[in-house]
Amino acid sequence: MSSWKDPEIAGVRALLASRQPAPGEPLPTRAERRAAMDAFGEMGSLPPGCLHEPAAIGGVKAERVVPINAVEGRRILYLHGGGYTGGSPRSHRPMVARLAEAARSAVVSLDYRLAPEHPFPAAVDDAVDAYRALLAEGVWPERMIVAGDSAGGGLALALALKLKDEGLPQPAGLFAISPWADLTQAHATYETKAADDPMLTRERLEEAAAEYLGSADAKNPLASPVFGDFSGVAPMLIQVGSEETLLGDSLLLAERAGHARVEVRLEVWPEMIHVWHAFGGQLGAARRAIRTAGAWMDERLGG
Amino acid sequence: MSSWKDPEIAGVRALLASRQPAPGEPLPTRAERRAAMDAFGEMGSLPPGCLHEPAAIGGVKAERVVPINAVEGRRILYLHGGGYTGGSPRSHRPMVARLAEAARSAVVSLDYRLAPEHPFPAAVDDAVDAYRALLAEGVWPERMIVAGDSAGGGLALALALKLKDEGLPQPAGLFAISPWADLTQAHATYETKAADDPMLTRERLEEAAAEYLGSADAKNPLASPVFGDFSGVAPMLIQVGSEETLLGDSLLLAERAGHARVEVRLEVWPEMIHVWHAFGGQLGAARRAIRTAGAWMDERLGG
Repeated sequence: MSSWKDPEIAGVRALLASRQPAPGEPLPTRAERRAAMDAFGEMGSLPPGCLHEPAAIGGVKAERVVPINAVEGRRILYLHGGGYTGGSPRSHRPMVARLAEAARSAVVSLDYRLAPEHPFPAAVDDAVDAYRALLAEGVWPERMIVAGDSAGGGLALALALKLKDEGLPQPAGLFAISPWADLTQAHATYETKAADDPMLTRERLEEAAAEYLGSADAKNPLASPVFGDFSGVAPMLIQVGSEETLLGDSLLLAERAGHARVEVRLEVWPEMIHVWHAFGGQLGAARRAIRTAGAWMDERLGG
Repeated sequence: MSSWKDPEIAGVRALLASRQPAPGEPLPTRAERRAAMDAFGEMGSLPPGCLHEPAAIGGVKAERVVPINAVEGRRILYLHGGGYTGGSPRSHRPMVARLAEAARSAVVSLDYRLAPEHPFPAAVDDAVDAYRALLAEGVWPERMIVAGDSAGGGLALALALKLKDEGLPQPAGLFAISPWADLTQAHATYETKAADDPMLTRERLEEAAAEYLGSADAKNPLASPVFGDFSGVAPMLIQVGSEETLLGDSLLLAERAGHARVEVRLEVWPEMIHVWHAFGGQLGAARRAIRTAGAWMDERLGG
């Protein structure tokens, strides 16, 4: 049992614990889980003046989120988390809106197809189609960031690898929050952080990986980018909490990308949990992480 | 053979290559090596208005470096590199002065005792004595950063571990440039980066480690901080070049410290070499790294 220096994270942990189904209670269905994620997002508030509307980009459903301070011509392509089997622009809207404001950029939050209905590589294909459509619209890659959390962080990196294969230009930067980037679940932090991670377990990620991968190899770099060749990939910022079973994914990414001469900034945030940015209403550390990442994106997006 | 996107780093590499002794030429003696390092520092220019003078702190020789914009009450305790067997405040003065200006802080650049004349733990003892003396002078730990490069980066982390043992307060931050933090030379980057690192080889570091360690165990955390328990240690910034045999030390430090709930920011700078900050006159990336680190220190030093 750990005690926490940050009283706010203790509060978030208590909130998460209160939501766990009681022993013997039936587990929620997939549809119920997806609806609960969307409801969490719909409950959150957006920064004042931030607008959003449905959109489609490259034939993929999406949501446009425009903060009041967006600089003309910038775009963040945002890829939400949810284990490739859940999540949506609705579930992630408040966090995405805060990131948009911090980066002073409009966001295209992608409603990519989910598994198991649409297994790998559907999500990667949707991300590439959207990226290509943004270029076709006239967005300069120098004015674009690809960002995502959890599975969406892994997908952002997979997209960057895929852009190399396709001969497409890299964006100005890649921002990954608590990325899930190794679908073999091999890292030691699955054990060393198991007792302290209130959100993710190896078992749950194994299930999601099986649903997403279908018959694909877990070591395919477009599913598990840690197995990819990062040379020539855009500068990346990785933010991860010290209490995550997925901490190892971020460490391995920094190692692989740094070794391949990619500009890497890895931030480990003490006491923080998986995608703590989503608790911006409760956690000062969430707001600080968003501000830090926003400054990084703002700098890379330029004029 | 690699080619470099940054033309400036190619120039620095050519400069370094031209300084290598020709085959058959006798290797410089220890005294000659130390004199050459000092001469390199004496050649460099300082930022306008930056003053320096000899000083002693806690009975340890040192140099005080005060930039024109130093904020009252701040101190950086700087620990130079040189494999624990060379280097001095003279050899590192231009780089230290630029860091001081970027952080808006006076620096105490420590002339700690060198091996083999004074093996481990002489350098650690000197660093602790100096830190304790700064506290006794009335410097608040909240207004202090401990920084260092190469062996001095490892020493900064060893000092932070030692402060825990001694019940002394941590500084506001730790800044390590290309730290040498594992004197067992175990990491894979000793092989994978051997062909691209123009400065350090495992053989040379083995020699320095033997001279520094004497009869001590290379796994003593005060000699090789990667083996230490980082819980409770100050926030740390690590900057390392992608071409370093020592890249692995930084990756391992980030892993160990992040796992132990320390606030960690690891930056891997593409194409850069061991302690590239020393080439501020030649490399824009050196000036950018110093500016980035300066902003990080400035923020942590507060008031």
